[in-house]
Amino acid sequence: MEIGIIGATGYSGNVLYNLMKQHPQVTAINLYGHQQDSALRYLDEEVPAFQGERLPIRPFNPTKIMQENDCLFFATPAGVSKNLALPLIDANFPVIDLSGDFRLKDPADYLKWYQQPAAAKSQLAQAAYGLCEFNQQVTKSYIANPGCYATATLLGLAPLIIEHLVDLKSLIVDAKSGVSGAGKKLSSSSHFSFINENAWLYKLNQHKHIPEILQQMQLWDSQAQAIQFSTTLIPITRGIMATIYAQVKSGITPNDIETAYQKYYQTAPFVRWRGTELPMIKNVTGSNYCDLGYGYNPTTKMVTVVSVIDNLLKGAAGQAVQNFNLMWHFPETTGLPQLPTFP
Amino acid sequence: MEIGIIGATGYSGNVLYNLMKQHPQVTAINLYGHQQDSALRYLDEEVPAFQGERLPIRPFNPTKIMQENDCLFFATPAGVSKNLALPLIDANFPVIDLSGDFRLKDPADYLKWYQQPAAAKSQLAQAAYGLCEFNQQVTKSYIANPGCYATATLLGLAPLIIEHLVDLKSLIVDAKSGVSGAGKKLSSSSHFSFINENAWLYKLNQHKHIPEILQQMQLWDSQAQAIQFSTTLIPITRGIMATIYAQVKSGITPNDIETAYQKYYQTAPFVRWRGTELPMIKNVTGSNYCDLGYGYNPTTKMVTVVSVIDNLLKGAAGQAVQNFNLMWHFPETTGLPQLPTFP
Amino acid sequence: MEIGIIGATGYSGNVLYNLMKQHPQVTAINLYGHQQDSALRYLDEEVPAFQGERLPIRPFNPTKIMQENDCLFFATPAGVSKNLALPLIDANFPVIDLSGDFRLKDPADYLKWYQQPAAAKSQLAQAAYGLCEFNQQVTKSYIANPGCYATATLLGLAPLIIEHLVDLKSLIVDAKSGVSGAGKKLSSSSHFSFINENAWLYKLNQHKHIPEILQQMQLWDSQAQAIQFSTTLIPITRGIMATIYAQVKSGITPNDIETAYQKYYQTAPFVRWRGTELPMIKNVTGSNYCDLGYGYNPTTKMVTVVSVIDNLLKGAAGQAVQNFNLMWHFPETTGLPQLPTFP
Amino acid sequence: MEIGIIGATGYSGNVLYNLMKQHPQVTAINLYGHQQDSALRYLDEEVPAFQGERLPIRPFNPTKIMQENDCLFFATPAGVSKNLALPLIDANFPVIDLSGDFRLKDPADYLKWYQQPAAAKSQLAQAAYGLCEFNQQVTKSYIANPGCYATATLLGLAPLIIEHLVDLKSLIVDAKSGVSGAGKKLSSSSHFSFINENAWLYKLNQHKHIPEILQQMQLWDSQAQAIQFSTTLIPITRGIMATIYAQVKSGITPNDIETAYQKYYQTAPFVRWRGTELPMIKNVTGSNYCDLGYGYNPTTKMVTVVSVIDNLLKGAAGQAVQNFNLMWHFPETTGLPQLPTFP
Repeated sequence: MEIGIIGATGYSGNVLYNLMKQHPQVTAINLYGHQQDSALRYLDEEVPAFQGERLPIRPFNPTKIMQENDCLFFATPAGVSKNLALPLIDANFPVIDLSGDFRLKDPADYLKWYQQPAAAKSQLAQAAYGLCEFNQQVTKSYIANPGCYATATLLGLAPLIIEHLVDLKSLIVDAKSGVSGAGKKLSSSSHFSFINENAWLYKLNQHKHIPEILQQMQLWDSQAQAIQFSTTLIPITRGIMATIYAQVKSGITPNDIETAYQKYYQTAPFVRWRGTELPMIKNVTGSNYCDLGYGYNPTTKMVTVVSVIDNLLKGAAGQAVQNFNLMWHFPETTGLPQLPTFP
Repeated sequence: MEIGIIGATGYSGNVLYNLMKQHPQVTAINLYGHQQDSALRYLDEEVPAFQGERLPIRPFNPTKIMQENDCLFFATPAGVSKNLALPLIDANFPVIDLSGDFRLKDPADYLKWYQQPAAAKSQLAQAAYGLCEFNQQVTKSYIANPGCYATATLLGLAPLIIEHLVDLKSLIVDAKSGVSGAGKKLSSSSHFSFINENAWLYKLNQHKHIPEILQQMQLWDSQAQAIQFSTTLIPITRGIMATIYAQVKSGITPNDIETAYQKYYQTAPFVRWRGTELPMIKNVTGSNYCDLGYGYNPTTKMVTVVSVIDNLLKGAAGQAVQNFNLMWHFPETTGLPQLPTFP
Repeated sequence: MEIGIIGATGYSGNVLYNLMKQHPQVTAINLYGHQQDSALRYLDEEVPAFQGERLPIRPFNPTKIMQENDCLFFATPAGVSKNLALPLIDANFPVIDLSGDFRLKDPADYLKWYQQPAAAKSQLAQAAYGLCEFNQQVTKSYIANPGCYATATLLGLAPLIIEHLVDLKSLIVDAKSGVSGAGKKLSSSSHFSFINENAWLYKLNQHKHIPEILQQMQLWDSQAQAIQFSTTLIPITRGIMATIYAQVKSGITPNDIETAYQKYYQTAPFVRWRGTELPMIKNVTGSNYCDLGYGYNPTTKMVTVVSVIDNLLKGAAGQAVQNFNLMWHFPETTGLPQLPTFP
Repeated sequence: MEIGIIGATGYSGNVLYNLMKQHPQVTAINLYGHQQDSALRYLDEEVPAFQGERLPIRPFNPTKIMQENDCLFFATPAGVSKNLALPLIDANFPVIDLSGDFRLKDPADYLKWYQQPAAAKSQLAQAAYGLCEFNQQVTKSYIANPGCYATATLLGLAPLIIEHLVDLKSLIVDAKSGVSGAGKKLSSSSHFSFINENAWLYKLNQHKHIPEILQQMQLWDSQAQAIQFSTTLIPITRGIMATIYAQVKSGITPNDIETAYQKYYQTAPFVRWRGTELPMIKNVTGSNYCDLGYGYNPTTKMVTVVSVIDNLLKGAAGQAVQNFNLMWHFPETTGLPQLPTFP
């Protein structure tokens, strides 16, 4: 198979390229830019770490892209694929989109959280939200790959919500993220002297992954209406930890909780349930794993679930490959690292 | 005045020595070890950063200490002062104790959380819990300086609790701390290769600062019975951020919250209320400030308060100096840095 | 005394403001911008860490500045003071300039290394190069405060050069620096995800502090003609380590080296000679110290000297205060921290 | 093939296990401890990042090991394999030893630098020093895998030495290393609060990789007698940068230098020559690459070569796999990552 990548020079794109390069089912990778008339560049010029990868980044041309490839990945910022992908959607061409453009079903949600108009509702309807563990049967040709915070949070929440174990109104997510989550773009908060030796709660109930979390929660339990969600930047490059707090419903025991997580993840190759051993970011860095652990407080009847992922793997490019595998009926783990890069 | 320090070679002791060295009311600092018969060492041998400070660290001898000093600081691990301080308590000699030994009034609490027997109840009763902003009138000669997590948490909680603005049962504290909080002692979790590029929720409802938080909360509102409290280690040397979540009571508005914080902290020289601008650790590092900010979620009726301190200053040695100033009726800010060491 | 600062919102300016705020001889600090007509801003708006410092940053007006202040500090990027300072130079008004504009005596050097025209030679002649330990008698009203790399390197080199202990042609300096040295400006190399977990030799014999190092070396030994000088960025915020390698001259012993360093620095309050104990950055961070240590290799006859400073203190604002003290005949240590902020 | 690993719970062992797990020629990995009678442990108990790898770590038994495996790796500290490996050497069993025990040919060198007796000279003689790019034809069954500093330094030096381009007496290596190089063992210098925001030249001409560097240099040019070699610890987990300074011989031009590096590395799959673009650590992290770049100073006639590797890959486990591939005549790149894990 040949695959195309738009946006291979960004962080998610770097990781996606790296994974695809080693994917046993992929014979060639073709790279494209966002614009039709940009000057020709080469991957190794833009990403010196990839010296030797003298691959051209060619102008965007949907007709050629569909001729040259079997599947296309968008590793682009918000606002790109909603314009560029339309001919591919019309042609039912296989696309895996790492951006947020096709995650939300309701255009009004996109407008509110992304502050720009969404694609048309009919086009949005053609995309599937690719949270792999809960979207194993791929029936659509367009996969909206979930956001990094959303992935960590939803995998942590799923058994609690689906099995109605907790009071929905009590849900609080305190998420911590490394700096690569914001991409390569320069900003005052990505300056080393700013974030080194620092921690900063930069978005309180304002992160744009909130609506996709809620949308998925509502599929699991239509009573879900809101979530308390804060994001704190910490001085690491890669990794997300979502700490989830919830009041358990009357009569629910720790055993019920353990059982629920085992039920949903026992056969999931990329979710490691650690029980009462609380997971840490470094144990998943470099892998596609989501590690989950929990604690129960008998005094407050509160459950705390900790969910960690590598934001550029399970939170972006890794899950994209997993979606690619599901789409093409390859074994789910094909081309993905088997172990984290510890230490 | 002459002051003595026991434990100047630990991290809190380093900072305390540094502050006292520049305190305008202190003419001499005398250093002592924990043991009566340890070999003579010198401060600059033990702490190379302090080259030139050729001060002997002499054996512990309570009689001599009381003769030589006007006030004694314990900057020692748990379990030291509960034994060594007894003759000083009997003599009503001024002591500021940075350890946890005299913070809890109930010996059973100490036994449970510190897993060793406490000092006698009568001796514990002679110590005041020195949360400066709420203990401005020093009436006791023995000050139990609060723990670092407890300081950040209690200063963040106080107006909410005292003014009954929130549902006590809904309280959740998600605290993040740098590595110096665990001291100089080697452990697998303080290894650079472990905690660098990592985050680890190391204690869920098990940190020993929980009982002193609860004890103080109960003084403010006798209904307080429990708190959900998690501590996450992040890869920074200094700093604590306590993120506090609580359900506001029916009828309480954001304006009520703002008013309450202003009421308690308007004249407090070391608490900076930032309103809806959420504070970050680096803005207090190197200072004795506690910065506080908040956000209110009208959908979930939840308030989030963020409290940040430098764990070795406001969370240890800085607050100890502040207590010293209050005890001796010096202006509260004497000898303390006026600004953080930004950047 | 009242002092003025131009550029208090940059990193060096932040630290300078912090120091001056606590300087016992300074009664007021006035802040100015670079431009005559900029809108009024306030310090605490620009530097949130300094909340509460509601000081206006007023437009630049040399006449008013000379009326309102006794001394002016430029904490500005290259290219500012060479224009703005001219009326102050003409008036012989006391200035301490942290930028590179008046460090080089030869306008051609400035043109070559800064790639813009220098001030006039006659104006350059009115500035003294303020390497404090070697410029104790301040006879000029304009002090060009040395660069950070230059300070670390020159203090490490001085005894070797002045006492002719080493072969000048063999000199190699391998300097390592933290990220704050490049200031607050955003650039791809100050992005956290770039420099975290990285080290990058960014300038090989191309750093603009080279000409001021050479100029000073030539004052010490007119034979000095060149220096091999590399600068490596490492993932820390503050600190410089200059590792100096040189072939010792025939007949010179380690004892001669020790004696030379003691001769020049025994009474210097801010240079700590550590002999064969090699110094580290963290032992000077937060202080105005330069720590020096050395090793001698009897096989290769090579001496290695390690020199460390806090780039924002001894390498910028701290040395500026030291120059201020020397200029006004205050004790050299006035208003400067006595100890590093360890840990 | 089945392979055995002794020491899979250390950092190099972790990475080796991870690589071997994905090596297409390896069907099974067997783990062993250092001792004959240690209690049975499991890999995922010792290394939580490897949860799910429920592999027993069995007692050391050379007879069984030779029966069960085709090749054995020692990823052990100094002093282990010199005792344990003897029966395997006698049996001519294939071994790749990541420790320093069999790198030095002269037992007196080992005694001096490792401060313990070496294996017998005759046994040492049976080991080949496995610097892959210069040991492509594996003729011995025992490979002494080079040290991390030695690999970075020797690959950077080789063309200069072999082609006699530089004055051997002028050679200086200023090497910087991350903390994982010292392994998992706790020590005051691996404490996060010590090395974070710090840099420390910890060994000046005293690192135990010096004798293997010299030994190899002497094979290339018998005139080589000494090297100036310093090692500075910097706050990163993985990576080494060796900055090499040397006086070029009269008549040698930059072009000669470029030509020499191209000659030796043009076909080397894991050495990337970057010419005058100076390499940085992050561009090789996670890969088996050694990136090399240089600069020439026409004034001082000095060449500076910068060599960077991931200390746990090219400096340990990666090179071990490369040696394994060479030994068994697999393509040299088999089972090794094709690209660094950027960012």
